[in-house]
Amino acid sequence: MTIAFGNLAFDEPLKRLEIERRQPGPDDVRIDIAYCGVCHSDLHQARGEWAGTLYPCVPGHEIVGRVSAVGGAVTRFKTGDLVGVGCIVDSCRHCYQCDDGLENYCDHMVGTYNGPTPDAPGHTLGGYSQTIVVHEHYVLHIKHDEDQLAAVAPLLCAGITTYSPLRHWNAGPGKKVGIVGIGGLGHMGIKLAHAMGAHVVAFTTSDSKREEAKQLGADEVVVSRNSAEMAAHRQSFDLIVNTVAAPHDLDAFLVLLKRDGTLTLVGAPATPHPSPNVFNLIMKRRSIAGSMIGGIPETQEMLDFCAEHGIVADIEMIRADEVNEAYDRMLKGDVKYRFVIDNSSLS
Amino acid sequence: MTIAFGNLAFDEPLKRLEIERRQPGPDDVRIDIAYCGVCHSDLHQARGEWAGTLYPCVPGHEIVGRVSAVGGAVTRFKTGDLVGVGCIVDSCRHCYQCDDGLENYCDHMVGTYNGPTPDAPGHTLGGYSQTIVVHEHYVLHIKHDEDQLAAVAPLLCAGITTYSPLRHWNAGPGKKVGIVGIGGLGHMGIKLAHAMGAHVVAFTTSDSKREEAKQLGADEVVVSRNSAEMAAHRQSFDLIVNTVAAPHDLDAFLVLLKRDGTLTLVGAPATPHPSPNVFNLIMKRRSIAGSMIGGIPETQEMLDFCAEHGIVADIEMIRADEVNEAYDRMLKGDVKYRFVIDNSSLS
Repeated sequence: MTIAFGNLAFDEPLKRLEIERRQPGPDDVRIDIAYCGVCHSDLHQARGEWAGTLYPCVPGHEIVGRVSAVGGAVTRFKTGDLVGVGCIVDSCRHCYQCDDGLENYCDHMVGTYNGPTPDAPGHTLGGYSQTIVVHEHYVLHIKHDEDQLAAVAPLLCAGITTYSPLRHWNAGPGKKVGIVGIGGLGHMGIKLAHAMGAHVVAFTTSDSKREEAKQLGADEVVVSRNSAEMAAHRQSFDLIVNTVAAPHDLDAFLVLLKRDGTLTLVGAPATPHPSPNVFNLIMKRRSIAGSMIGGIPETQEMLDFCAEHGIVADIEMIRADEVNEAYDRMLKGDVKYRFVIDNSSLS
Repeated sequence: MTIAFGNLAFDEPLKRLEIERRQPGPDDVRIDIAYCGVCHSDLHQARGEWAGTLYPCVPGHEIVGRVSAVGGAVTRFKTGDLVGVGCIVDSCRHCYQCDDGLENYCDHMVGTYNGPTPDAPGHTLGGYSQTIVVHEHYVLHIKHDEDQLAAVAPLLCAGITTYSPLRHWNAGPGKKVGIVGIGGLGHMGIKLAHAMGAHVVAFTTSDSKREEAKQLGADEVVVSRNSAEMAAHRQSFDLIVNTVAAPHDLDAFLVLLKRDGTLTLVGAPATPHPSPNVFNLIMKRRSIAGSMIGGIPETQEMLDFCAEHGIVADIEMIRADEVNEAYDRMLKGDVKYRFVIDNSSLS
């Protein structure tokens, strides 16, 4: 029996639940969860805003903790290791996506919550819980100091979701990179792009975020509602990573890209963005792309990169029983920049 | 005095006009035009369907002929050479686009018609004329046999517009490439992708075009209105070049792309496409891109590639005074696949 925090219906708050975890199989790692980040996806899933939420729903896919047991065939982990689990707990492990280390694009990728599993209750239950049992392939080593552990948790989703497109589209020295939105994802994007050596421009709708964006590592900050500020950056970006999921005008960012530049969307709106102007793509051979979290090898690479560069998320720690309130505050943007649950509050 | 064919107002048909060409300057090449292809853009421009048409309007940017004079500083051409001119007759020649040989993306690119010029009448006049004078940088060598010259003309726009994205996104052996639309652009796309060694799938809305698409070089033909045929190609394409400018559902093609696949648009609709579903980009890191004609070096490369592989356009030859009727037939899709004006009919 494991204590968890979740809900039984879309219109009910999350509360204390008792759930079962499987006994570790030969390839499994059991983790005593120390902290779990609170992602906007958790809220969408628990509140039934995405189709197909299965209840009981236990969200949470920014999981960090210590290994408390390993199966007999496990080679990469031992009891006591500091480890993390992100958005993925299974995949087919034989398609070309898995072969390429991009399990996040496997057609049979199993999410850390609400995914299909033979375990009770038939769908995966996430990290708002005391323990989790995961195939070792999907477990990551954490090399940060233990006192940073809570702030490492959001790297497992917010971190990799921005790291992966920054790496894929070659953010680095000599490149001008934009990050749209300074929230859970965006604040990580700024830190990571800065550490990669890119010239980083943060876009925000809020003049009040200028200073904090610079402190996160932005070289410049542009208030996207200020058309003169926007125009000054016309045709200058190699890459813009757009973390804003609310529908908005993509053309305003497309025209800021150089020839061959890419606007990468990492959030999907519930209702469509206004249709982008095809001329803005054609005239400078620009692209609009999407990117979804990251593969397991690159998640390990990201964690190692962050440990090396001293990067963690900016967090506000909460008890599990504060998560409903945290959701409401998240909806108002009232968090800098990620809530993290202290899972010891479950006991 | 040069005889040309053009119109004086958007609602007037094209007719015989007399125009002036400048005397060749030191860097200029004067060309006696033998043939000029008829592009859909010509119709848009002449009929004022794009903003800013300047009259008199003399369309035509698929120009082939013989050099009849060269300026004193011209090094690459001599009288009698078989040459071509495409969509570009000038650019700044010092920006990074021009330095990269991508004059088509230069902010100061001057189109072969309707572009700014100090020459009378203040805007460029195209290839529906007996002669044209062009800076040698924008003139291309033609290595095809002379008896193929008329069918070479469409390579200068329809050819390069499809060649450039096929090369840029690495069409070739081992790649599965889709071509959407079997018209002036699409029929060239099929021939070129086939010659590059890709596995080519042609998409058409018309069942009647199956056989002709195969004869053009398509390995497979898919009727895009047939959902079962479309579904059979799900997640299998590296690249789809979409030549259709009419607004249509892009998602139907996005879902056919593999991870990291690209849907490249080479036509821009007058009213927007339905907004594409961002999930279709995010779930497999796909891209929607645009591409516009091609640079001068790659246009030469394309012409050489076509000469080497025996590629020309499929054309229907017309007299200049048949161009109004040809426009009307083009609107009905009644051409296989490009009208080409025999410019000797102007005299």
